[in-house]
Amino acid sequence: MTTSTDPHTVATVRYRRAADYLAAAMIYLRDNVLLREPLRAGHLKPRLLGHWGTCPGITFLYSGLNGLVRRTGQRTLLVTGPGHGAPANHANLWLEGTHAHYDPALTRDERGLAELVRRFSWPGGFPSHLSPEVPGVVHEGGELGYALATAFGAALDDPGLLVACLVGDGEAETGPTAGSWQGHKFLDPATSGAVLPVLHLNGYKISSPTVYGCMSDDELTAYFRGSGWSPHVVDVTATDDPDALLAATLDLAHAEFRDATAGYAPPLILMRSPKGWGVPDRDADGEPLAGTFHAHQVPLEDTDLDLIERWLRSYHPEDLFDDDGRPHDDLLADLPPEHLRLGRVPQADGGRLRRDLPLPDVAPFATEVTAPGERQASPTGQAGEWLAELMRVTEDRRDFRVVCPDELESNKLGAVLDATDRAFAWPVPTYAEHVAPDGRVLEVLSEHLCQGWLQGYLLTGRHGLFPCYEAFASIVDSMVNQYAKFLKMAGEVAWRAPVASLNYLLTSEGWRQDHNGYSHQGPGFINNLLSKKASVSRVYLPPDANTLLVTLRRCLSSTGRINLVVAGKNSAAQWLPLADAEEHCRAGAGVWEWASSHPDPVEPDVVLACAGGIPTVETLAAAWLLRERAPWLRVRVVNVVDLLVLSRPRSHPHGMSDDGFAALFGTSTPVVFGFHGYPSAVHELLHGRPDPDRFHVHGYLEEGTTTTPFDLLVSNGMSRYDLAADALRRAPSAASAGGELAEALLRERDELRAMAYRDGVDPPEITDWRWTPGDAR
Amino acid sequence: MTTSTDPHTVATVRYRRAADYLAAAMIYLRDNVLLREPLRAGHLKPRLLGHWGTCPGITFLYSGLNGLVRRTGQRTLLVTGPGHGAPANHANLWLEGTHAHYDPALTRDERGLAELVRRFSWPGGFPSHLSPEVPGVVHEGGELGYALATAFGAALDDPGLLVACLVGDGEAETGPTAGSWQGHKFLDPATSGAVLPVLHLNGYKISSPTVYGCMSDDELTAYFRGSGWSPHVVDVTATDDPDALLAATLDLAHAEFRDATAGYAPPLILMRSPKGWGVPDRDADGEPLAGTFHAHQVPLEDTDLDLIERWLRSYHPEDLFDDDGRPHDDLLADLPPEHLRLGRVPQADGGRLRRDLPLPDVAPFATEVTAPGERQASPTGQAGEWLAELMRVTEDRRDFRVVCPDELESNKLGAVLDATDRAFAWPVPTYAEHVAPDGRVLEVLSEHLCQGWLQGYLLTGRHGLFPCYEAFASIVDSMVNQYAKFLKMAGEVAWRAPVASLNYLLTSEGWRQDHNGYSHQGPGFINNLLSKKASVSRVYLPPDANTLLVTLRRCLSSTGRINLVVAGKNSAAQWLPLADAEEHCRAGAGVWEWASSHPDPVEPDVVLACAGGIPTVETLAAAWLLRERAPWLRVRVVNVVDLLVLSRPRSHPHGMSDDGFAALFGTSTPVVFGFHGYPSAVHELLHGRPDPDRFHVHGYLEEGTTTTPFDLLVSNGMSRYDLAADALRRAPSAASAGGELAEALLRERDELRAMAYRDGVDPPEITDWRWTPGDAR
Repeated sequence: MTTSTDPHTVATVRYRRAADYLAAAMIYLRDNVLLREPLRAGHLKPRLLGHWGTCPGITFLYSGLNGLVRRTGQRTLLVTGPGHGAPANHANLWLEGTHAHYDPALTRDERGLAELVRRFSWPGGFPSHLSPEVPGVVHEGGELGYALATAFGAALDDPGLLVACLVGDGEAETGPTAGSWQGHKFLDPATSGAVLPVLHLNGYKISSPTVYGCMSDDELTAYFRGSGWSPHVVDVTATDDPDALLAATLDLAHAEFRDATAGYAPPLILMRSPKGWGVPDRDADGEPLAGTFHAHQVPLEDTDLDLIERWLRSYHPEDLFDDDGRPHDDLLADLPPEHLRLGRVPQADGGRLRRDLPLPDVAPFATEVTAPGERQASPTGQAGEWLAELMRVTEDRRDFRVVCPDELESNKLGAVLDATDRAFAWPVPTYAEHVAPDGRVLEVLSEHLCQGWLQGYLLTGRHGLFPCYEAFASIVDSMVNQYAKFLKMAGEVAWRAPVASLNYLLTSEGWRQDHNGYSHQGPGFINNLLSKKASVSRVYLPPDANTLLVTLRRCLSSTGRINLVVAGKNSAAQWLPLADAEEHCRAGAGVWEWASSHPDPVEPDVVLACAGGIPTVETLAAAWLLRERAPWLRVRVVNVVDLLVLSRPRSHPHGMSDDGFAALFGTSTPVVFGFHGYPSAVHELLHGRPDPDRFHVHGYLEEGTTTTPFDLLVSNGMSRYDLAADALRRAPSAASAGGELAEALLRERDELRAMAYRDGVDPPEITDWRWTPGDAR
Repeated sequence: MTTSTDPHTVATVRYRRAADYLAAAMIYLRDNVLLREPLRAGHLKPRLLGHWGTCPGITFLYSGLNGLVRRTGQRTLLVTGPGHGAPANHANLWLEGTHAHYDPALTRDERGLAELVRRFSWPGGFPSHLSPEVPGVVHEGGELGYALATAFGAALDDPGLLVACLVGDGEAETGPTAGSWQGHKFLDPATSGAVLPVLHLNGYKISSPTVYGCMSDDELTAYFRGSGWSPHVVDVTATDDPDALLAATLDLAHAEFRDATAGYAPPLILMRSPKGWGVPDRDADGEPLAGTFHAHQVPLEDTDLDLIERWLRSYHPEDLFDDDGRPHDDLLADLPPEHLRLGRVPQADGGRLRRDLPLPDVAPFATEVTAPGERQASPTGQAGEWLAELMRVTEDRRDFRVVCPDELESNKLGAVLDATDRAFAWPVPTYAEHVAPDGRVLEVLSEHLCQGWLQGYLLTGRHGLFPCYEAFASIVDSMVNQYAKFLKMAGEVAWRAPVASLNYLLTSEGWRQDHNGYSHQGPGFINNLLSKKASVSRVYLPPDANTLLVTLRRCLSSTGRINLVVAGKNSAAQWLPLADAEEHCRAGAGVWEWASSHPDPVEPDVVLACAGGIPTVETLAAAWLLRERAPWLRVRVVNVVDLLVLSRPRSHPHGMSDDGFAALFGTSTPVVFGFHGYPSAVHELLHGRPDPDRFHVHGYLEEGTTTTPFDLLVSNGMSRYDLAADALRRAPSAASAGGELAEALLRERDELRAMAYRDGVDPPEITDWRWTPGDAR
């Protein structure tokens, strides 16, 4: 295995033999885990689950990093892209004693070893791939593509940290990984840590060659040099001493990091090893196995008992573990001191490092509202000022970041750039504005990178916000799915402390994509989040600037959640003074009595409900129209800011009590609901509420393209005229007079629409709102 | 503008001036479109919408391609990544006469020109970015990232076609684009066309520098050489004659294509030009404009009337158009013959090229079912055999492809590889199996590439299938959103013929991800598709192999849809003989009388409904348990194969009539519904059906990880015991006896679950199903 006489290299080779043996044992054995007796069928697990192919490569890197950390004392976090190689990680965590540290049942002796081996891929045990239950892990690697982005996020604002990131050559084919190779250009060596990517080229994915595995060293070197890296090849098949080669390469890389300045080409390792390295060359049928895709998963079937035993014994476990099942001391000689072991790095349990943000008071940033609708303001514009202040007060802590796909200014959050810059550590052209290596805004035209970076940042104990065009948040739907799973499982792990919530601020909403058109209209991110665990997901639709401020403050002080906030960027009428906004957000929903045309608690003819900025304007305008045109109609206006109050308390912790719900919506009153997103999202939440069919939800129906704002509303049946007409039709008291009035309203709507088509613009918005509570009744 | 005396170059320069003028006019003018009189505020559009920054670059390439096509006769399709540069495309389409060809109002004279200019970004007119209404377009470019993948898909299996693809340097930052640069390795020069990527480096996105724009020519050249391309730099700022340089480069590229063999490094163009090329250097405040991000969108405000006029007049429209507003002949001299013009390429209206697939008879591939549940089969295994036959019968036509993220074998569709290979045109390692340049299966570990390739392939008139792990289909949620929009709009364009449907076959479903665990469990793709336009979306959940065959045949013969099929890959009980499967699929849902414990149409105590393979097994097993344990309970079993029959006819064309719905589910009978996905999807569809709260939907609740299949079902309340117990509790007739029986069933469930935890395996499945209709009543 090695020609080296260096004692650490010898130790590493023996260490790897032990780790590889244990990984294979986890996949196969339920008993006789050290092969103290001849292998029998009964020692095998009844279901063989696991992925061997990548395991030896993971251990090769893991053991190499052990040596680097021992030699240099470098604080190091490992992000393992091929999460299906979990047996390797477990083996290393057990050998280094981390497992015993976190779980007294996993002691570094035969009892603990037997428990570890049995637990892997066993009901109630360790999942077959990496997950939050595994120490040292900030990335699952079940769905592939995000390891490298996560690694960059983890390295941000932590100058002493090295994040090694193993990327499989299969994962490398994913778009998000291919895009992630540019990440180092956003990393400032002065204020952030370093990322050492290790591209693991073992040639095959599940059953095909990999694209990157088919590239020559020259091609790969050119590719990564062009991307601004300094690539180093570590080919285990081209050396007698792979461990020494890796150690020397890691030392070189480490030295390069130490001397780093902005714009340098950091090291990257191209690591070639045969797939399933160490498995028999051929299977029981004589077909090639080692170095082929057949070694990807469980390489030998349970019927090949002899071959399995021969393979396992080829590692000579009897030579690696003592009579008590403890690994011999000599093979642990290259391990770092305990507190620096890869599984123990504090950043992997970032919740313990997290400090509450010093959130600025929102009052100085609030909009003064003396009468509802009197003032105009841009909700995100106001929020931007507050976020800028948050940037300022965290300037020394550097534990708050904004990630955004180059839309900060377009989303009217540009004030943040008065407090910090956009991060870019490489040379930029002359006319770049607000760009600097140590900027704390990360703008890249990739929602995937934004999401991956933020996940890595949060899971290592920091805070962040992801403002995004609403329609394009769906680009990261599947990443959100995986992250929600991570949060749910992490919440069930006793030793993990909660991390700061993942906060989305979706704006440039579909209703104001009258200019960018149909492709930019899509509120489906809400629907996706509603399918996540109730313990994790929150959806807020603040209707104005003050409610947005209060909501953002709530989100940024929370932990363990995925908070979705949807808010407008355009200047629009403001409804609630700050004190009312606080109260409204606390309740999650409430009656707006000043807009209702009758005093509570008299049962109204119809409830006009709304959730979201634009629907709130339309709903209030509908109430305004009804006041004028049908003063006899008893209308109650309800605004919902916390969408999940609509669900039942048993479905979601924010679910409103039956009484509370009835106080807003009655039990049989017709409700005309102006909703920001797809009506189906509201229908889904109302399941189980009294007579849900009385809710007539108006929302986005996938209609309209580049047009005027009013025409977009009309196209989707969401204009004030549509809402008012529907209210008239639904109200039992309205009868035939209501029907005629409704017709008249719709005619008026059509005339205004025709005007938009003719002139290209809408009639002016109401600006003389003068609500006098209940005066119209 | 040019030092060339070559008449075609001179023509091209004048042509570009005309096109650039028209693009700017579209953004600004509603009247006086040729500036016959001094510009007045009233000539401006009331809302200035559009993106100027990328327009001159689009026209530069467009005009260069015109020359190439004129010189070579090369059939060429242009895919424009920066779809926001639509004014440029429109200008070129008008100049070349394509607009007039498709729309008699857009004649190549002043009337047509005025109409075009006014229509752009006007309500009811052309959207502000590319869309299906625009001739020559197979890609919108609203959401960025997929132009290049689309281009590769368009080039597949069309050896005479050149697909030029303009990629913006902003778009290049997206993961899917970064991954797409490997696409040429899947393209066989012998059987497919070529893709010529043109990376447009203008340095800035909305408000920041671009990552690729910050790379030097050396870096870019290394990057693309490493990826297997032959890059050519066309820098308009480094030459006196950009048009001649581009023309020479295109000629060179064309020659390289002609000589292509598998594994060659194809040409790629790095095109540098200043952002907004041609706009004034500085804005009205003296701030830099040309060559900065300030030129991204509408570069001058409507208040800068003088500057707008000076800019527009700098193109000298009076020198380009005659008195009738026709472009002077000389500037059209470099245009190709009419039928070869870029807007006229037939592939851009692929529906007209589409031929129905010669779908093989399914009968020879059907599973023989003499009694329900008697036989076991793998649904996708059976389907794979039929798909292999489809591959064989289309071998000469080469108009059917399978795209898959390296999961064909894992999804038990490996039989397809007996009929064709996996495509890979570059050298592969020794142990690759079923890999060849002309293979018609595209396996790449990137759902984004699979989706983009398939979109390009379908929109140019071919057919395809996308098998995918269920949980990872969400990776392309946002691409599906955009594609659904494209299909909806295309359906409203008179001259577009319908293209073949986009067909997903999702398998390796969450319920059988007991081995891969929590990260691989996620049925949310259904929810996403339900939010799409009813005219576009279909969701099928065939419960066995024969229903899957019938469903696939239906999907592959349909047009204009997104068909989602979810089916199992594991060997499982088969329920319906082929004839019954045909009938069942035709109806979309039906009573399975043989499993029901009482004869129709007597109203049952409870309906056990199911949709999806695993829920069907569990539901039938629940019916089986109830037959034994509660023979007095009248149970009706209903299976739903076409999920959208549940919605009301006014919500979806597949929605079942009220009578049909009542015949299955009654109007007040409790329904215990075993559903494959999130229960919310069914709740959403049932909105408006009589008393939807009587539907008790069991489905995936985000519980369970690596465990046994049975434990996974129990964790989500979807096991046979849970369903049977719920039926007993809901049935009004069951009363207290039912409650006790339900308790007993749940105890039995818990014992079996404990066994799974102890032994690591589940008890054997029922294999002696012997249904005797109604005998238990």
